Amino acid sequence: MPLDRFDDGRAPLDRSGGGAVPLDVVGMGNALVDILAEVPDRVLADLSLVRGSMELVDLRRAEDIYSAVGAAVEVSGGSAANTVAGVAALGGASGFVGKIADDDMGNVFAHDMRASGVELRAAVAGVADGDAESRGTGRSIIMVTGDAERTMATHLGVSSTLCAADVPEDLVARGGVLYLEGYLWDRPSAKEAMRRAVEIAHDHDRSVALSLSDSFCVERHRKDLLDLVLSDVDVLFANEEELRSLFSAGTFDEALADAEETGVLVAATCGPRGSFVIGGRGPVEVPAAHAPHVVDKTGAGDMYASGFLYGLTHGSDPVDAAHLGSLCAAAVIGHLGARPQHDLAELARAEGFV
Amino acid sequence: MPLDRFDDGRAPLDRSGGGAVPLDVVGMGNALVDILAEVPDRVLADLSLVRGSMELVDLRRAEDIYSAVGAAVEVSGGSAANTVAGVAALGGASGFVGKIADDDMGNVFAHDMRASGVELRAAVAGVADGDAESRGTGRSIIMVTGDAERTMATHLGVSSTLCAADVPEDLVARGGVLYLEGYLWDRPSAKEAMRRAVEIAHDHDRSVALSLSDSFCVERHRKDLLDLVLSDVDVLFANEEELRSLFSAGTFDEALADAEETGVLVAATCGPRGSFVIGGRGPVEVPAAHAPHVVDKTGAGDMYASGFLYGLTHGSDPVDAAHLGSLCAAAVIGHLGARPQHDLAELARAEGFV
Repeated sequence: MPLDRFDDGRAPLDRSGGGAVPLDVVGMGNALVDILAEVPDRVLADLSLVRGSMELVDLRRAEDIYSAVGAAVEVSGGSAANTVAGVAALGGASGFVGKIADDDMGNVFAHDMRASGVELRAAVAGVADGDAESRGTGRSIIMVTGDAERTMATHLGVSSTLCAADVPEDLVARGGVLYLEGYLWDRPSAKEAMRRAVEIAHDHDRSVALSLSDSFCVERHRKDLLDLVLSDVDVLFANEEELRSLFSAGTFDEALADAEETGVLVAATCGPRGSFVIGGRGPVEVPAAHAPHVVDKTGAGDMYASGFLYGLTHGSDPVDAAHLGSLCAAAVIGHLGARPQHDLAELARAEGFV
Repeated sequence: MPLDRFDDGRAPLDRSGGGAVPLDVVGMGNALVDILAEVPDRVLADLSLVRGSMELVDLRRAEDIYSAVGAAVEVSGGSAANTVAGVAALGGASGFVGKIADDDMGNVFAHDMRASGVELRAAVAGVADGDAESRGTGRSIIMVTGDAERTMATHLGVSSTLCAADVPEDLVARGGVLYLEGYLWDRPSAKEAMRRAVEIAHDHDRSVALSLSDSFCVERHRKDLLDLVLSDVDVLFANEEELRSLFSAGTFDEALADAEETGVLVAATCGPRGSFVIGGRGPVEVPAAHAPHVVDKTGAGDMYASGFLYGLTHGSDPVDAAHLGSLCAAAVIGHLGARPQHDLAELARAEGFV
């Protein structure tokens, strides 16, 4: 089946009044299809992969890893893409900017974004465009071990060629919040795309949110990311390791203290303990929501951001927004895959949020 | 990632002694990737789809249906392919014959078969070969409703061009049982491929098993399929509707009586009631295994055939084989998708089967 139409200027789903309707959140990130496989622990060791991390891999290593894992399931993914799909599942209006190829996996990604209610604005490359490393829709091999931890090996493919010219000013301008994933910083052209998107957001008085994505990614680009946070970011999402890495802090408490000094609204997640919100007042601890049956932690951070951003853009204060984030995170870790399968809007209503 | 090597003459996995090792079961069928989406009941009505059926659709209708369903999950499928993957999961040796394209979905299919331990011998077409209707790896949109029922719309793509020349004599000759899916009968060239495979099996004194696949498929080809059963088939798998359709019987009991007269070993499944085995003696009822949590019935019949064929090829009598089939069917309906996610060999051991 060919690609869905996805750059057709239509307003998203039922929100159309014929004109350019506002969006709550516009995300920009790597457009990836996740290849999910449950693996025994020894496979990670055999492949020299660091449990819980995301490693960028070239085509050759991606093939080796794919050959080593068992039968898999394919689901649309990508960190920021997951988050805006979650915002839509909560009933919010969201859009997404990324880059796919005109192949089966690009088709799957485009379909799932639209089917989730997200307005997709994707640059599309031909299947044979570019060299072998930048060809084809990006994909992330996600290895889920028995402890529900996920270890990722990502071949960015064409998503690594996202560039400033691929950023649609009109779409970014319509979003109340621009949401960026730190993973983009790993590629020079995508970094320029981030800078361009930030510029558009500022020109239109929009907020900018950033997820740090991965502690190794922060290690690689600490200074640049810190400059970005201090000068351009209004809301920062990070987990414990990422925040410690950003501030070169020995302990989480030190990192929280450093975060407070930035004046940025920070949502710092710490797995089953929950999260800390740092805004006008000192760190406020928000417990994790109850997750009866943890199958796969993939997407927990992404869904937390969905709930947090939905809350912020719908009048909640940051601590209430964090509670909604915890609810969404708990909902996604009960099944395999990073996209919401539950009716998050119903969940939020049941908990008195909407 | 390009296609795995899959016609490389290697013996399957660890069974190699360097030569042509025997296989328990060689399956032949449509090589499909399943696109699984949970849908509300009204979507089936809107699309004029018959709940629980499989409809063959052209490219245009496949696109319309894909557009109408929500975010989806992609998993390797195909009825006979599922069955031989199940045989491998039980610890048996199995092979598969089918046809894929050199595209993402073909890659996914080839990877999953090999990763499941199945020796794959697939004909591969170029991505641009053939007309629009026969291009690309086949796919089946599987709509799962709240009652766990599945309704399928299948675009066969390149799998519809499987022909007699695609049947590898050496692989079929190595299988103790040749297992065919009735769906193949829907395409003239694939029908010839079935006849050729049967011829090879007979030449090498192998058994032939047939699954009737779908009552509508039986309706379309009743006389041909009945002739095939009477002259060439040793083991027949059918559900209640398919068996009634094959014998134009008013009731299931009449169909069972007609089946007994054929002299063929028949395993007739009837959903939650279990199955009936008709062999040397009259119909023996075998209850369904307990399935605590039914999520998706897709693959129940395919996995029943896995257990049954594994049992038969490992010394069980037909009634014991049917019990193993019930266990495997119960294991697959507890999750989304038609391929086994559990360790079926362990399950069989726990129940005293192996």
